[in-house]
Amino acid sequence: MGGYGQMKKMQIEKAFTLMESGPVVLVTTNDGNKNNIMTISWTMVMDFTPIFAMTTGSWNYSFAALRKTKECVISIPTVDMLDKVIGVGTCSGADTDKFEKFRLTPVKAKHVKAPLIKECLANIECHVIDIIKKHNIVVLECIAAYFDHSRKEKRTIHAIGDGTFIVDGRKLNRKKMMKSKIPDGL
Amino acid sequence: MGGYGQMKKMQIEKAFTLMESGPVVLVTTNDGNKNNIMTISWTMVMDFTPIFAMTTGSWNYSFAALRKTKECVISIPTVDMLDKVIGVGTCSGADTDKFEKFRLTPVKAKHVKAPLIKECLANIECHVIDIIKKHNIVVLECIAAYFDHSRKEKRTIHAIGDGTFIVDGRKLNRKKMMKSKIPDGL
Repeated sequence: MGGYGQMKKMQIEKAFTLMESGPVVLVTTNDGNKNNIMTISWTMVMDFTPIFAMTTGSWNYSFAALRKTKECVISIPTVDMLDKVIGVGTCSGADTDKFEKFRLTPVKAKHVKAPLIKECLANIECHVIDIIKKHNIVVLECIAAYFDHSRKEKRTIHAIGDGTFIVDGRKLNRKKMMKSKIPDGL
Repeated sequence: MGGYGQMKKMQIEKAFTLMESGPVVLVTTNDGNKNNIMTISWTMVMDFTPIFAMTTGSWNYSFAALRKTKECVISIPTVDMLDKVIGVGTCSGADTDKFEKFRLTPVKAKHVKAPLIKECLANIECHVIDIIKKHNIVVLECIAAYFDHSRKEKRTIHAIGDGTFIVDGRKLNRKKMMKSKIPDGL
């Protein structure tokens, strides 16, 4: 496993800001035997604490490990990683070591067995706190989060769902207007 | 109520592509007496059919109407509407007619009493099919969707959650690589 590199721990109260814009994410698991990665676009912030939801189920090979271990890492890739992200999403951990195939570096997490991904902009260690079978929703609680400030490319990608992707564009600041709605310290 | 203007019905199988990238949305309701709007950033696609989830609860004035009528419209604003979107999100329907205050035009929907918003890029009529109280998740089924192709500004906005917003940037095409994962007809 690789070292932490330039990844620095971030305040857990800010971790929801990594997910709220709706980026495509990579989700890693470790079933006790091997690491795996899946590409997920169907996610949602559910609380500032932070709690996340994602839609997945047995159609994803990773789901068995997720259900068994109740752990995963959400890794946030940037636009320069798009083809790897699609590659990860279009093959199966059943017959592929995706870390090896896509030259991604697993980094030991602190609280979960699922690895962080060194090449990603941010990583979020998560516990599975509920699985809503009826709707294939997995509810995740963030345990720790890391951000690589040294990375030049910080633009994330957003799936449209038809095979096209939107890259982050301009950033607009409305902190003053939003003041009443934003948790303290952000 | 205004007319449909340039809004054209779109194939329901494509409606999930309006939501998958994670834009900030406006959600309208009608409680039998008056229209209201809320701004929501915590949403997720759950199926291609399409089914959506959003996180909301009694802290939003609209929630009572949503629970009572089991109907709403998801309206998708663009970057030129950002200040209206924030305005809608920082006052309450309890004491404000938001359509009037923010000069938005309600348009009669076909299947639900909640109105479409004429100024938005797209509108999605929805039925509430489940409310998962434990997690404040509302599950929505899309009944009809409309898109205003005549609009020049098509860039949506993505909340970071700290009072800043990301505007849609470049669009990248990976339809060939994604072919195995995309429903037919997209």
